[in-house]
Amino acid sequence: MSDRITPRTLKGFRDYPPAMMIPREWIIETARRVYRLYGFSPIDTPALEHLEILIGKGSDETDKQLYRFEDHGGRPVGMRFDLTVPLARFVAQNIQDLGTPFKRYHIANVWRGENTQRGRYREFMQCDFDTIGTTSLSADIEMVLVINDLLTALDVGGFTIHVNHRGLLNGLLEKLGLADQATAVLRSLDKLAKIGAEGVSKELRSAASATDSQIEQLLKLSSLEGSNDEMLAEAEKLVIGSPVGERGVAQLRELIGSVTTTLSSEAMGRIRFAPSICRGLDYYTGIVVETTLDDLPEIGSVASGGRYDNLANLFTSQELPGVGASLGLDRLLAALEELGRLEQVHTPAEVFLPFFDSDRRNEYLSLAARLRAAGMGVEFFPDAKKLGKQLQYANRRGFRVALILGNDEFTSGECQVKNLATGESQTVARGDDDANLIAAVRCILQS
Amino acid sequence: MSDRITPRTLKGFRDYPPAMMIPREWIIETARRVYRLYGFSPIDTPALEHLEILIGKGSDETDKQLYRFEDHGGRPVGMRFDLTVPLARFVAQNIQDLGTPFKRYHIANVWRGENTQRGRYREFMQCDFDTIGTTSLSADIEMVLVINDLLTALDVGGFTIHVNHRGLLNGLLEKLGLADQATAVLRSLDKLAKIGAEGVSKELRSAASATDSQIEQLLKLSSLEGSNDEMLAEAEKLVIGSPVGERGVAQLRELIGSVTTTLSSEAMGRIRFAPSICRGLDYYTGIVVETTLDDLPEIGSVASGGRYDNLANLFTSQELPGVGASLGLDRLLAALEELGRLEQVHTPAEVFLPFFDSDRRNEYLSLAARLRAAGMGVEFFPDAKKLGKQLQYANRRGFRVALILGNDEFTSGECQVKNLATGESQTVARGDDDANLIAAVRCILQS
Repeated sequence: MSDRITPRTLKGFRDYPPAMMIPREWIIETARRVYRLYGFSPIDTPALEHLEILIGKGSDETDKQLYRFEDHGGRPVGMRFDLTVPLARFVAQNIQDLGTPFKRYHIANVWRGENTQRGRYREFMQCDFDTIGTTSLSADIEMVLVINDLLTALDVGGFTIHVNHRGLLNGLLEKLGLADQATAVLRSLDKLAKIGAEGVSKELRSAASATDSQIEQLLKLSSLEGSNDEMLAEAEKLVIGSPVGERGVAQLRELIGSVTTTLSSEAMGRIRFAPSICRGLDYYTGIVVETTLDDLPEIGSVASGGRYDNLANLFTSQELPGVGASLGLDRLLAALEELGRLEQVHTPAEVFLPFFDSDRRNEYLSLAARLRAAGMGVEFFPDAKKLGKQLQYANRRGFRVALILGNDEFTSGECQVKNLATGESQTVARGDDDANLIAAVRCILQS
Repeated sequence: MSDRITPRTLKGFRDYPPAMMIPREWIIETARRVYRLYGFSPIDTPALEHLEILIGKGSDETDKQLYRFEDHGGRPVGMRFDLTVPLARFVAQNIQDLGTPFKRYHIANVWRGENTQRGRYREFMQCDFDTIGTTSLSADIEMVLVINDLLTALDVGGFTIHVNHRGLLNGLLEKLGLADQATAVLRSLDKLAKIGAEGVSKELRSAASATDSQIEQLLKLSSLEGSNDEMLAEAEKLVIGSPVGERGVAQLRELIGSVTTTLSSEAMGRIRFAPSICRGLDYYTGIVVETTLDDLPEIGSVASGGRYDNLANLFTSQELPGVGASLGLDRLLAALEELGRLEQVHTPAEVFLPFFDSDRRNEYLSLAARLRAAGMGVEFFPDAKKLGKQLQYANRRGFRVALILGNDEFTSGECQVKNLATGESQTVARGDDDANLIAAVRCILQS
């Protein structure tokens, strides 16, 4: 065929072959399970929205990155660039039916025409959970507990949940008479790790017209050290007299206390007051959270979120406070891979059943059905090729057990059970309903 | 705010609130579990593809319905309209690494700018599974077994898997000297249920220039009745002498035999030879399958598929035969709802924990953590409102158990366990680690 088309993906997009997709599905399913254990319900919204719903709701950058076009009815439309704007639209539209508190999770792809030179993809998955319609600190506490349970279930190794409260800096700025310079100050402080205290001082002086004593206090708040209690006591001194600041300290104290009480003793050290984290400039208004892996902190936060006062003010006059966070799926996957915490498999089934005696297909199929009924994944090879070729295939795919049955085994009622990791084989008498065989396989799978 | 935007979804699109999304996720998870038990691996591909990959790969209709635009680099792109074209592109691109047989499932949204008057949506989810790179009948048999296991796991009630083979009609046409009229004949026979034998005869006469005796034979094949064995024997007589037709009969006989041997005795009647089903004109070349619900056959097939000779000939010179099917998620959901086989719940958690004594938040949180560790979903109400209001919320959401603890209960070490379905309450002594309480809740959940 002369008009054959070269198969290729679009720039900035990628396929997920089984070896990438199997761990992705495992993480997504774990997130779903943990979210549900807390009563968060799934929702989904369309990939496409009216353009006016999306435009101007993120930053100038997201506007620029928006995939937009006209649909078949000539309507300007866009592909969603996050799950927060669709949540706001959805909640504004349905809150009367939904009632509050409304707890939802949403795991879905979003699209941004980003600069791919930064190693970013133009399609990526977000895993958000939020509680809408309550100002109770219980919801903030729960956000931290969900992150803890999720990362524990994902077996990521040690991790630290860093919490801060936007009221602290706001309170200090208020006290220092710098409230109108909040954006410039935040932008400078955000660079602390990158340009150091001296660089930040310089910026605060020029961009926010801050005096030396103001700068000293701002840097002091951002650089507190010690135990959670010690840091909170120091922070309290800095903001005392500011109701916003004092409330922030009180909420942090209560949240950290609640979380450490609820966690198991070995998990208590995971939550840390971190006065330097900000998480964006405008959206969050209360508690903010970031989470780092202790063995790989440099990759940044793998689960982040916080509290906001008003989710949907662009769509409704109803005030909808909320709190929520998001799992950084791709970052977490990259980290787990780097840490060697992901198994390399290309098959979701554990057991491989070669097709050896071509006259006995139905007997193989019946055996496979019995193993599946016992909850084991079984791949039956479709073609009665040479056994060596079939076992090669099994090893490449990453099966754990092969069950070898030829004419001899069928006649004697036995089966060779091969542990593909060790190469060891054992002969097992199949017995009634293959109960023996199932037990032998299970034993290998659990080892 | 004067510039508030009306929150609304695009024409042809819809949101999935929890009450719709909970059963959807349950079906998707069940499909995933069954596919995996057979060794099918997950893949994903981008929502957007180069336009040239998508255009001309479906029908004229799908071309017209394609969402297409230019991306930020000026490349013509389109949103995928099915998962088969992306599979073909993916396999053509990666088959050297993947190896064969390649068994994949793909559960993802596709988009078509369809006429919404037919009650169709412009975004819908497909749940496909395919085995690529083998002509072995084992893969065809397995397709039927997967459909059987999936619909059994979904508890849809009675269902029938209708199988046919494209070789039968092709063989008969060959014998009748009508091979060059195949498309016209198929198009006419496809209307049998709608316009009856007389209408079809008229069409066959005018559109395919068929003679009365040719028409008689064609209608005979399409209208066979009796047991599978009887029908197969009749079909064999009609196609005898045509290798294509005889092979079709032999494959059907072997497939039906294998499936009935493998299935449990009460499930054996589920598979029926159905010589009238065609499933499209060009794509399928061997076994074809449709599945209907016995209590609601009129909604059409809920799981369909078949064998094809060449998946990816537009992208590669390598011949890639395969076989696969797709679960009709939305149709199945609609059917289960109509049959009253879906529970109406708005929460994925079973247990509701009211916030009653506002001084004891940490004690509630610890109890909730213990129940979650035992695998139970628990929603803790965030605000210490009146108990009646909280229970109203719980009933509306569809929780099954409420655990009521006030100051008295905390003091006495007891808990009121309320079965929200029956309204009955019992007082349970919590005991060490809440083991008693967990047992009592479990007892209600399992009832």
